[in-house]
Amino acid sequence: MTDRPDPDLNDALMERYGDAVDAPDMPADVRQSLRRMASRGSCRRFQPTPVPDDLLQTLCAVALAAPTKSDLQQRDIVALKSEDRRARLADLVAGQDWVAAAPMVLVFCGNNRRQRLLHDWHDVPFANDHMDAVINAAADAAIAMAAFVTAAEAAGLGCCPISAVRNDAAAVSDLLGLPEHVFPFAGLAVGYPAHPPEIAMRLPLHVTCHVDTYREDGLKESVAAYDVRRARAQPYNRQRFVATFGTSDTYGWSEDKVRQYSQPERAEFGAFLRARGFQLD
Amino acid sequence: MTDRPDPDLNDALMERYGDAVDAPDMPADVRQSLRRMASRGSCRRFQPTPVPDDLLQTLCAVALAAPTKSDLQQRDIVALKSEDRRARLADLVAGQDWVAAAPMVLVFCGNNRRQRLLHDWHDVPFANDHMDAVINAAADAAIAMAAFVTAAEAAGLGCCPISAVRNDAAAVSDLLGLPEHVFPFAGLAVGYPAHPPEIAMRLPLHVTCHVDTYREDGLKESVAAYDVRRARAQPYNRQRFVATFGTSDTYGWSEDKVRQYSQPERAEFGAFLRARGFQLD
Repeated sequence: MTDRPDPDLNDALMERYGDAVDAPDMPADVRQSLRRMASRGSCRRFQPTPVPDDLLQTLCAVALAAPTKSDLQQRDIVALKSEDRRARLADLVAGQDWVAAAPMVLVFCGNNRRQRLLHDWHDVPFANDHMDAVINAAADAAIAMAAFVTAAEAAGLGCCPISAVRNDAAAVSDLLGLPEHVFPFAGLAVGYPAHPPEIAMRLPLHVTCHVDTYREDGLKESVAAYDVRRARAQPYNRQRFVATFGTSDTYGWSEDKVRQYSQPERAEFGAFLRARGFQLD
Repeated sequence: MTDRPDPDLNDALMERYGDAVDAPDMPADVRQSLRRMASRGSCRRFQPTPVPDDLLQTLCAVALAAPTKSDLQQRDIVALKSEDRRARLADLVAGQDWVAAAPMVLVFCGNNRRQRLLHDWHDVPFANDHMDAVINAAADAAIAMAAFVTAAEAAGLGCCPISAVRNDAAAVSDLLGLPEHVFPFAGLAVGYPAHPPEIAMRLPLHVTCHVDTYREDGLKESVAAYDVRRARAQPYNRQRFVATFGTSDTYGWSEDKVRQYSQPERAEFGAFLRARGFQLD
């Protein structure tokens, strides 16, 4: 990570959004923390160096200090320390061979089972068999994962979330020994980066940040401009489903996302959750 | 925040988990970032000082640099800058009067609408009308909120997530002008803390962190010990539903959570999502 330029916070945000963000004066250490978060990027290529156990444990502890809905703590982390298990997980996340080479893979799980056990032990009926219970557990897992990423990146590690653990969630659950009402939310590859991350451009802030009321005036034009800006600076190195859609001369973010979601992805996840005991009403 | 003791990272983790975590040697700035995250806590009482606009915008920009599923960017932030709107939101999150006094409230929303609009514009059918689409958008919102919290706390602000924006999600959506396929995931109160946060104790790491395989050996005993440890250091100042359950001499975390979930909470959220155009199959 030594050859990474160290852009100022405003520069990192300009690169990310294409909009000027004028950060206020802040103490140097705060500015540094925010700059690190602003200039982060996912990492899929790692040095072979293992992630030390004490660092991993510290990062898990820091991550689980993040907010959790009503203090219910409905998330767990399964660290795949066995190379064999990581390889087996990699087989279950189609098209992401790089996962097998990650020095560490964590799986963040939603856990609604512990809460139900508490009800058994206290002999009090559980009255929350519905959709929101799933959202709460998934969100707890997502929040813990986000905090882990921030902490790990501060410590010089690179990370990449792997939502594809939900592609074949039943097989992943079997691999991890997950019981009913526990589900894999996302994997997270972790290691020392082989090269500095790219700052993935994001939609401009006027598209995603609203004041008082949701607005989408000029959305189509804003997305078109974002497509152009991004295609110029960060062109895709392959186009999806060329056999169906042909090759596009103006291939950008929106076309890539549309081609991706022209195919069903994880249409069975609801059925998996039901099979694991959840009501989705 | 000047009277806050500045515990070392290991001390903060010991206070949080009751387990010794032996953090490795790290540069001072990294240790400081991790300590800040480890010793965080939710904040519901704020100084009247407003959150400056440029700081708010910077924090939103930093938060939206967090990972997003497949780069789909299915989350938005609505900042309630109008005091009247914050008061109206406070009316919709029952039992949380403190929300009205927060200097700023953001609502993190899942947004699957933008993706569908891209399909319209490119004239490509959207093939992902299912449960996983909802999880992805909710998780994107959760990840952005978690990153916002970390960034805001680094900048000296306090935050408290408000999942109760889903209690009457239709009314909150009307207040914010959310269209179909956009939903409120959580509110976030933000401001300068009136006093230092409490470090909420968490379940011990051997309960929530697993190696290779999910395990729950000794779970009941671990929860019982946690209940005792927490009741001693951080006793609840009120018991829930005393008319039904009576007063408990050993009221702890598990009893509080069981009493809370003895009542249905947001059982209508699935119906709300369906009414807003989502398939939950």
